[in-house]
Amino acid sequence: MKRRVIKKFHPPGTSPGTVSLPGAVAVTVDLPLICYGPDFVKEHRIRSLAELGKLAPEGVQAWLRIVGHQPQVLGELATHLGVHPLVLEDVVNVGQRPKVEDYESYLFVVVDVLRRSANGEFEEEQISLLLFDNLLVTIQERESDVFKLVDDRLRAERGKMRKMAVDYLAYALIDAAVDHYFPVLERVGERVEEIEDSLLDHAGREALEALHGLKRDLLRLRKATWPLREMVGALARSESALVREPTRVWVRDVYDHTVQIIDIVETFREMTAGMLDLYLSSVSNRMNEVMKLLTVISTIFIPLTFIVGIYGMNFDTSAGPLNMPELGWPWGYPAIMLLMAVIAGGMVVMFRRRHWL
Amino acid sequence: MKRRVIKKFHPPGTSPGTVSLPGAVAVTVDLPLICYGPDFVKEHRIRSLAELGKLAPEGVQAWLRIVGHQPQVLGELATHLGVHPLVLEDVVNVGQRPKVEDYESYLFVVVDVLRRSANGEFEEEQISLLLFDNLLVTIQERESDVFKLVDDRLRAERGKMRKMAVDYLAYALIDAAVDHYFPVLERVGERVEEIEDSLLDHAGREALEALHGLKRDLLRLRKATWPLREMVGALARSESALVREPTRVWVRDVYDHTVQIIDIVETFREMTAGMLDLYLSSVSNRMNEVMKLLTVISTIFIPLTFIVGIYGMNFDTSAGPLNMPELGWPWGYPAIMLLMAVIAGGMVVMFRRRHWL
Amino acid sequence: MKRRVIKKFHPPGTSPGTVSLPGAVAVTVDLPLICYGPDFVKEHRIRSLAELGKLAPEGVQAWLRIVGHQPQVLGELATHLGVHPLVLEDVVNVGQRPKVEDYESYLFVVVDVLRRSANGEFEEEQISLLLFDNLLVTIQERESDVFKLVDDRLRAERGKMRKMAVDYLAYALIDAAVDHYFPVLERVGERVEEIEDSLLDHAGREALEALHGLKRDLLRLRKATWPLREMVGALARSESALVREPTRVWVRDVYDHTVQIIDIVETFREMTAGMLDLYLSSVSNRMNEVMKLLTVISTIFIPLTFIVGIYGMNFDTSAGPLNMPELGWPWGYPAIMLLMAVIAGGMVVMFRRRHWL
Amino acid sequence: MKRRVIKKFHPPGTSPGTVSLPGAVAVTVDLPLICYGPDFVKEHRIRSLAELGKLAPEGVQAWLRIVGHQPQVLGELATHLGVHPLVLEDVVNVGQRPKVEDYESYLFVVVDVLRRSANGEFEEEQISLLLFDNLLVTIQERESDVFKLVDDRLRAERGKMRKMAVDYLAYALIDAAVDHYFPVLERVGERVEEIEDSLLDHAGREALEALHGLKRDLLRLRKATWPLREMVGALARSESALVREPTRVWVRDVYDHTVQIIDIVETFREMTAGMLDLYLSSVSNRMNEVMKLLTVISTIFIPLTFIVGIYGMNFDTSAGPLNMPELGWPWGYPAIMLLMAVIAGGMVVMFRRRHWL
Amino acid sequence: MKRRVIKKFHPPGTSPGTVSLPGAVAVTVDLPLICYGPDFVKEHRIRSLAELGKLAPEGVQAWLRIVGHQPQVLGELATHLGVHPLVLEDVVNVGQRPKVEDYESYLFVVVDVLRRSANGEFEEEQISLLLFDNLLVTIQERESDVFKLVDDRLRAERGKMRKMAVDYLAYALIDAAVDHYFPVLERVGERVEEIEDSLLDHAGREALEALHGLKRDLLRLRKATWPLREMVGALARSESALVREPTRVWVRDVYDHTVQIIDIVETFREMTAGMLDLYLSSVSNRMNEVMKLLTVISTIFIPLTFIVGIYGMNFDTSAGPLNMPELGWPWGYPAIMLLMAVIAGGMVVMFRRRHWL
Repeated sequence: MKRRVIKKFHPPGTSPGTVSLPGAVAVTVDLPLICYGPDFVKEHRIRSLAELGKLAPEGVQAWLRIVGHQPQVLGELATHLGVHPLVLEDVVNVGQRPKVEDYESYLFVVVDVLRRSANGEFEEEQISLLLFDNLLVTIQERESDVFKLVDDRLRAERGKMRKMAVDYLAYALIDAAVDHYFPVLERVGERVEEIEDSLLDHAGREALEALHGLKRDLLRLRKATWPLREMVGALARSESALVREPTRVWVRDVYDHTVQIIDIVETFREMTAGMLDLYLSSVSNRMNEVMKLLTVISTIFIPLTFIVGIYGMNFDTSAGPLNMPELGWPWGYPAIMLLMAVIAGGMVVMFRRRHWL
Repeated sequence: MKRRVIKKFHPPGTSPGTVSLPGAVAVTVDLPLICYGPDFVKEHRIRSLAELGKLAPEGVQAWLRIVGHQPQVLGELATHLGVHPLVLEDVVNVGQRPKVEDYESYLFVVVDVLRRSANGEFEEEQISLLLFDNLLVTIQERESDVFKLVDDRLRAERGKMRKMAVDYLAYALIDAAVDHYFPVLERVGERVEEIEDSLLDHAGREALEALHGLKRDLLRLRKATWPLREMVGALARSESALVREPTRVWVRDVYDHTVQIIDIVETFREMTAGMLDLYLSSVSNRMNEVMKLLTVISTIFIPLTFIVGIYGMNFDTSAGPLNMPELGWPWGYPAIMLLMAVIAGGMVVMFRRRHWL
Repeated sequence: MKRRVIKKFHPPGTSPGTVSLPGAVAVTVDLPLICYGPDFVKEHRIRSLAELGKLAPEGVQAWLRIVGHQPQVLGELATHLGVHPLVLEDVVNVGQRPKVEDYESYLFVVVDVLRRSANGEFEEEQISLLLFDNLLVTIQERESDVFKLVDDRLRAERGKMRKMAVDYLAYALIDAAVDHYFPVLERVGERVEEIEDSLLDHAGREALEALHGLKRDLLRLRKATWPLREMVGALARSESALVREPTRVWVRDVYDHTVQIIDIVETFREMTAGMLDLYLSSVSNRMNEVMKLLTVISTIFIPLTFIVGIYGMNFDTSAGPLNMPELGWPWGYPAIMLLMAVIAGGMVVMFRRRHWL
Repeated sequence: MKRRVIKKFHPPGTSPGTVSLPGAVAVTVDLPLICYGPDFVKEHRIRSLAELGKLAPEGVQAWLRIVGHQPQVLGELATHLGVHPLVLEDVVNVGQRPKVEDYESYLFVVVDVLRRSANGEFEEEQISLLLFDNLLVTIQERESDVFKLVDDRLRAERGKMRKMAVDYLAYALIDAAVDHYFPVLERVGERVEEIEDSLLDHAGREALEALHGLKRDLLRLRKATWPLREMVGALARSESALVREPTRVWVRDVYDHTVQIIDIVETFREMTAGMLDLYLSSVSNRMNEVMKLLTVISTIFIPLTFIVGIYGMNFDTSAGPLNMPELGWPWGYPAIMLLMAVIAGGMVVMFRRRHWL
Repeated sequence: MKRRVIKKFHPPGTSPGTVSLPGAVAVTVDLPLICYGPDFVKEHRIRSLAELGKLAPEGVQAWLRIVGHQPQVLGELATHLGVHPLVLEDVVNVGQRPKVEDYESYLFVVVDVLRRSANGEFEEEQISLLLFDNLLVTIQERESDVFKLVDDRLRAERGKMRKMAVDYLAYALIDAAVDHYFPVLERVGERVEEIEDSLLDHAGREALEALHGLKRDLLRLRKATWPLREMVGALARSESALVREPTRVWVRDVYDHTVQIIDIVETFREMTAGMLDLYLSSVSNRMNEVMKLLTVISTIFIPLTFIVGIYGMNFDTSAGPLNMPELGWPWGYPAIMLLMAVIAGGMVVMFRRRHWL
């Protein structure tokens, strides 16, 4: 999780728009290009973007999926599709804030997908979309199944996806990305309740660390979701003709989802904020209880110990009648025991009255 | 209460607008349709929305009440009234934020009613309104009496409800929904005072948990009321012709109510925020008092116990004149008792001066 | 004070605009109507608003004072002056937020006057103003002297009040209402200082409760003054022709006063926020002092008591030369006393070095 | 400092615009009037504002300095210059928020100068400016040297002040007033560092009170500087023709200064906010240290004292072989001493391991 | 770091626009002037700005680098380039907020570069840019390598810098300045993690001071970065023709960087805010643990010590059969030892049940 607080950066002063890929080699993988129209779907494998024009002529929608940041492919994006170098820089330097940028002939959209990996950690993936008039290019960091269901829906007959323009596909992908937040939130919600219960039961060090971890995760979620909402909102309000009117109502629906996500995150944050107070009060309550017990025991035994100390003194009773005559009384011992019992009892009564016992 | 922090969601990537009803069976219940005009009210029971046109011709206002989410009925909403699939999705996925959406031929309004159930818990109900030109469709989650009084007013002769268009009926229903918050707030206000009193009297664990519960409920109320205000405000400012001019002044009055509700919730929140401080100060005060008593008792008895310890030492008084000659003095015992009384008395005086006793 | 956190409300679903007056009887009191122009003032007593037209013809300014909520009078407001039922509802349901509403032919203004009653509690009074073209209607909850000075100024010759239109009179009344906050704030300011002093001197339970009460009062003041400012601001910016240009500069002056009032309230709030910290630090300081004393006394006496305990052991000195030969030494007792004095002295020196004494 | 939290106010209901001066007598002091143009400066002393027209004809800039609130002079401002009664009220009721008011023929500007007096307290002075087309009237509370340097610059040959219109003079005076905040801030900055050091060194009561005083002063500074910024901003954006274009760039420079002042104040506030946490942590750390020492000493000596208590028991060793035979062993005493040394040593080792020593 | 909280200021009332350089002597250093076009770069050394027109004729881009604040050079900026005196004042009074000011014929830009110096402290440098149509003047405080890489890129053949106008060079320099924040943030991020780990491990005084230092640095960073963002945003939105259209997209990219920087700073701030709570909880946990041990040991030994005290009393067993007959029983000692073992064992069991051990 830590790697991503600061996105990748170049040495200050380097030329912007530089796409530097440490250790990247020119891997030539065939790219999947899915062409579709209202009544057909066809998948091609292309070697170079030069083939695009031939495979996806006027009136055919096309979805080009690029996985991984291969310099040659990114270079062709610039050459064949006129993509701005700053866009390529943002595609490569993952850890960007979600955003929409309007480059007139295309829209550049960055989305962040957050998922829980197998070991319970968050896993972040930046997905970049380039929305042209009849072409959608998606660039993922690595092979993942974020878009699997959308892909299936496109290939299946049902659904309106094939009937609408390529911006609807873009919407469907963004919707899928946003929907990935809900299972994450559900798990976080479970953690919130687990921790709350454990804080009330036995406020120990583990609960505190769990709470701290939860707060960090919520902070992270918050940092991820606010710009997401902003991005979807910007897309919904965008004046670009690339987002067609019928698609906008669907984008506004995604916007509602992002608002709900933020609502949930903020609710969790306020819940956990209250929890630390609860924890501290709980600790302070327990300490109070411990202190009370100590006080009560000390307060009862300290005078008693003093009394037995008195009769342990070695004054010479034969030196005079005032020298501890009690020691020679036949009922001296039981009397002193009784006296101490009375003192102890009186104290217990007093403490009960003050609600200390 | 927990179920609702996160609204129902589909697996990420599912087609949006999908209305999935787990275990929903095609229950065919006749729907009540209330037709009315300035001088009549008539209730019909219809099987299919196809009957709508016949029963509610031009110039007749109609209110269709749907209770429960029956797939067949929702399907007919789409077929006969042209309702957008996203609307149906929001109707079914309860837990939506209150909102107004303008679909040109109709307005879609979501309201949340919050009530206290028999066992003191909050009970939330999402109510969806579809406001057409002469038809109002309300969809409730379950049978409840939220709209009972409005229904009665419509059937009774008095009131202006029958004279005005169907948007006034929609207003009256929203007003009734909003007014349900006041008794809830009144009860919360009583709890605020109860807890405040109990915190000042005996700051224990129960009071702390009650305060925590109260804060959660207030957090919940806040999350419910802010979007409510937003929604009513959007309705008041809406440019849709479906909200007629004479109705707007009434909607603005509901808006004032939501502002008052938020005001009250925020006042309670600030009150309870101060309470935790009060509680902590109270705990800290009490601990202070306990500590002072411990200190005073220890401080008085520790030196005395030391003194009696001295005279309990077994030095051989016959070994030399310096070896504890006090033990042999005839008035040694009373003298030492007097000395200790003087020490104890001096300490009590000193503590009183420092206001520790 | 509690009554007013939640304003009066009807059962949810009741017809809005209903003016319900529990136990209200038709008291027929003559209403004072003050007619005035640049060169005359005349007070009439009227039975019905029907007399208005006759007594206050074109070009004559009139001020109608209604005290108490008499159903018959309020009904006549609707009948003779065309006042909206929602206005009447707001007039009766006291506890409204200050506000301005523009009903074209008249402005409806709600002001809240806050005063200290004889027993030091806050006393709130809602005053409603209906500003027509040549008529001002004021409706007060009960007989009070809020407007006494303005009334006197109107009757006296001096002042510009008679020369200007009736909106200036409305301004003067609002100004008087707003100015009632200053003496309240002055008294609160004195309490802030009293409590601050008492917190620094002896941070006890009473000071804490006084601080808590002060915070509640400030919270209340804040809730009262923000909408007041909003209201006066709305009046100053109002586009209604009923607020004439020369009057606006005076309204802006009242607006400045409300800004100052809020400034003062916020200053007091920040001062009291700091005070709880001060109190807690003070308590924690004192506890520290107590703990230090306990530690020092214990730390000095515990080893000494251990030493005297050693020489109180009953080992048989005759059993062997290693068995406590000190007891038989002629200078054993003074030596051990000296040893203990040295230990105690060394500890005192150490504690002084560490600044614990 | 306290006097000024609440500005002077009249009894509620008094006529606004009333200039009441408690104990003000008609002091007739000659007022200094400085007339100047690009190539001359001349100081007159005038008795009545009636002389203004004669002494400062068309094309001559004039600066009239009024010190103190003399009723006769203020009355002449209204008579001869048409100053609004509300302006005069604000001039007299010192403690106004800095503000700009546009009365078409003149601008009314209120500035607050904050300085440290000889005894280290803040000293506040309200300065009112009336900016006419060719005349600037300044009204100060009392004789002070706030404007001395500007006066000198005007009289000296150098500088552009004489070449520009009277609004530049107004700017120069406001600039001087604003610049008085910097030395105040510098002194506050020193106090911030002094207190921070003293908190880390020995977190005592004096440091806490100093911190509290600092926070109050910062609160005060904040309340003074935010409206100052607002005022200068309003002046810079003012649409009045009285602020000429060439002067605006200079006013914007003052605006930058006020922004910097607020920046500094906010930085100090955040620094001091962190300090209380530091103080509390420091106190809590020290208490921890004290507690640890107490625990360690108690924990070591309590078992030892118990052991020596055992061998101080008076069981009759002759009654049976099980009755404390240790007392009769020849090496009983050294053995028990050794045992206790081992116990004490073991505990010290354990405490060291737990880092408690 | 402290010097810069308050920027340099003149005595209040001094003429604004005064460029006072304490101890500045007229050093006449030749200034480097880099002239360039699409196909050439040439560096001149000039003595006076009078040479500018000759060396950089129409159509040639020029970059004039001024290092240090030499009065003669700054004076020539005013004389030859018409720079406003306020600009020169801001150039000299370092510690300005980053800002853009539009003086029609040129833009004045202030940037702040923050770097870590060798000893780990922050080092701040104010850089001023004057962007004319074909000339860029940069003024640095002192010789530094902030612009080294940009300079290199300009001289090298590659890159688009030479092909574009001088505003692109200005952009490149601002970009380099902004990029200097990333390594600083990276180091701060490492400190955040170091401190977090050390707080969880052993919450001592050093960790607290490190945390305090970190918070101050973050406060400082925040104060530096918000105006930076504002400045770059203002530049991107600037209506000045000096910022040409093709450059704007690059400026917006820098804006994105500043948003990211602020995001990171805010994330760090929220992380550290949580840390103090963690620290305090950790301290309070440890204190709790210490208190528990003390209580347990005291509670176990105090009654035992009381019991052994009883049998140390010197009642005369021969005085009567009730006087401590236990002392004479043959198995009295083992019995009492057993009793004490039972008491101690019982207590340990009880404490284990309560989870105190």
